Amino acid sequence: MTAPADGNLRRFSLAVDAMGGDNAPEAVLDGLELAAERHPGASFLVVGDEARLSALLATRPRAARLCVLRHAPQAVPGDMKPTQALRIRDSSMRIAIDAVAQGEAAAVVSSGNTGALMALAKIVIKTMPEISRPALAAITPSARGDVVMLDLGANVQCDARNLIEFAIMGDAFARAVLGLPAPTLGLLNVGSEELKGDDRVREAAETLRAQPGLAFHGFVEGHDIAAGTVDVVVTDGFTGNVALKTGEGALKLMRDLLRQVFTSSIPARAGYLLARPALERLREWMDPRRYNGAILLGLNGVVVKSHGGTDATGFAHAVDVAMDMVTHGFTQTIRDSLSRLAASPVTQD
Amino acid sequence: MTAPADGNLRRFSLAVDAMGGDNAPEAVLDGLELAAERHPGASFLVVGDEARLSALLATRPRAARLCVLRHAPQAVPGDMKPTQALRIRDSSMRIAIDAVAQGEAAAVVSSGNTGALMALAKIVIKTMPEISRPALAAITPSARGDVVMLDLGANVQCDARNLIEFAIMGDAFARAVLGLPAPTLGLLNVGSEELKGDDRVREAAETLRAQPGLAFHGFVEGHDIAAGTVDVVVTDGFTGNVALKTGEGALKLMRDLLRQVFTSSIPARAGYLLARPALERLREWMDPRRYNGAILLGLNGVVVKSHGGTDATGFAHAVDVAMDMVTHGFTQTIRDSLSRLAASPVTQD
Repeated sequence: MTAPADGNLRRFSLAVDAMGGDNAPEAVLDGLELAAERHPGASFLVVGDEARLSALLATRPRAARLCVLRHAPQAVPGDMKPTQALRIRDSSMRIAIDAVAQGEAAAVVSSGNTGALMALAKIVIKTMPEISRPALAAITPSARGDVVMLDLGANVQCDARNLIEFAIMGDAFARAVLGLPAPTLGLLNVGSEELKGDDRVREAAETLRAQPGLAFHGFVEGHDIAAGTVDVVVTDGFTGNVALKTGEGALKLMRDLLRQVFTSSIPARAGYLLARPALERLREWMDPRRYNGAILLGLNGVVVKSHGGTDATGFAHAVDVAMDMVTHGFTQTIRDSLSRLAASPVTQD
Repeated sequence: MTAPADGNLRRFSLAVDAMGGDNAPEAVLDGLELAAERHPGASFLVVGDEARLSALLATRPRAARLCVLRHAPQAVPGDMKPTQALRIRDSSMRIAIDAVAQGEAAAVVSSGNTGALMALAKIVIKTMPEISRPALAAITPSARGDVVMLDLGANVQCDARNLIEFAIMGDAFARAVLGLPAPTLGLLNVGSEELKGDDRVREAAETLRAQPGLAFHGFVEGHDIAAGTVDVVVTDGFTGNVALKTGEGALKLMRDLLRQVFTSSIPARAGYLLARPALERLREWMDPRRYNGAILLGLNGVVVKSHGGTDATGFAHAVDVAMDMVTHGFTQTIRDSLSRLAASPVTQD
């Protein structure tokens, strides 16, 4: 099955795997109910246990208006190996992915098994011919607004060519999802000087510096992520995965410690109440649900992985990300950038 | 010059490069004045501009009692290339390092140029014969107490054997500096399952699992650092450098945002005052100065790198770390662990 050109055949904005994640299918449908408010013109192909989904939709009127159900007799369990998941042809995840491959939907969103989703998406939707390896991207908070990070673990080993492709995909993603006209890009390294790091990052930096149309800032370091020094942070999947989780862990530690601080005494509790409006704004801004939705970039269609443990709010954010990418013709933007790259010399190792 | 066996000839607890760092030599001597209170039995060989140091010591009576000055006509600037620094034989950094190599002091502490310090230490003090590559370690806060992380950038590319040696050095370091009788060790990876990651981490994990005397926990992920899942987090220098700085950056972001929160309105200011004792305890606990002092492990002597921008409090913490390592016979502990390792099979790639 080959992917159709943008726009062909497409009946649905998104295909949704309704059976993936810890709180499926309830959290998924609650999320769609929230998303329906923000995207009243969208249409969702919702795949899963039709009887259950149909009963749940009866009490979610806004989602019901935008959703079409498709039955899937099976679901991919969270702990199933990707190789095994590939063999199940009638899982909700597989049928939702099939809808993208067949051009029925522009994107798929799932809270299910990450490894299975990545493997199925790569095999069924397929990698863009211009890209050697897809990458996993996500949005993370910084002092100067949202920052895109990639790769987050799709490729634990990368060469210079992979990093260059990640930069181009990250650039297109930041344009589509963050709405930035000329996002700045940084390559993660152990220092910001040109000679730092290994051959791989130095080679990639050299090519990116010469790349027309890319606002390449140069090397950035770990602390530049939260500082928001650049809009897009590019790195290999090993480092990116560790860095993203390290940052999340540090923020969680601070949240937990602050909770202890504000319950440690009666004056501290009173202090919390006085500062509450501002603290609440901070809490909302840092809310991990606002950053839910990792995106597999570089396929012939949009694939968004929602966190398995998220709730309706988090799932609705993942839907937002997918809708942004579809609306902004994300896949086409990457194709255009890659053909520009093909026209200029690229370091290959 | 070869390093002497532990205890021989040694006249000083520490050699101190008094001319390194942004606030040298004042912050260094103020730091020694603080350290002198905590280590009244120590003796410091303080190297630098003798006239300046002597004038400064006159107003720092506690430090003056423990310090012996040695003149160095030059200092290594912060931006000097390591190769160039190696050629200056009469810099304060070089003379302080020479004192360790010659067995006059057990350890050296410097706030100066990191690259120069690492290069000079490796060439002059020399790597332990049992170790293939030294590693840079530091202590970072977690929900369950202090955590040791290494490598932090001494080796941007590592093989399985390097990671195993880092684990052994990290174990010895946690015993000496954190005072833990059996520190738990984790190998940083993109997932905690045995099959995750690349060959390098899987091979290292296999050897560490079989290693007697090591409390190897298995793989840990980025978020485990701040969670304090293990006492020692082992990784390659590229990932470790990025992870440490990413975590520090996230904590700094939270500190900055909290400052904004508590100055955003009059009630919020009042709230801060009420919760202040608990917030101050949190601030002190997170104080980066408390974690000052990166340690170059695997040399025939203790080398501690204090942050270039730190103040007296931070420098005194770096001195504490060096004193802990000297007092606990850190170098000998590593030797013992390595000979146990040599007696058991090790994967080499």
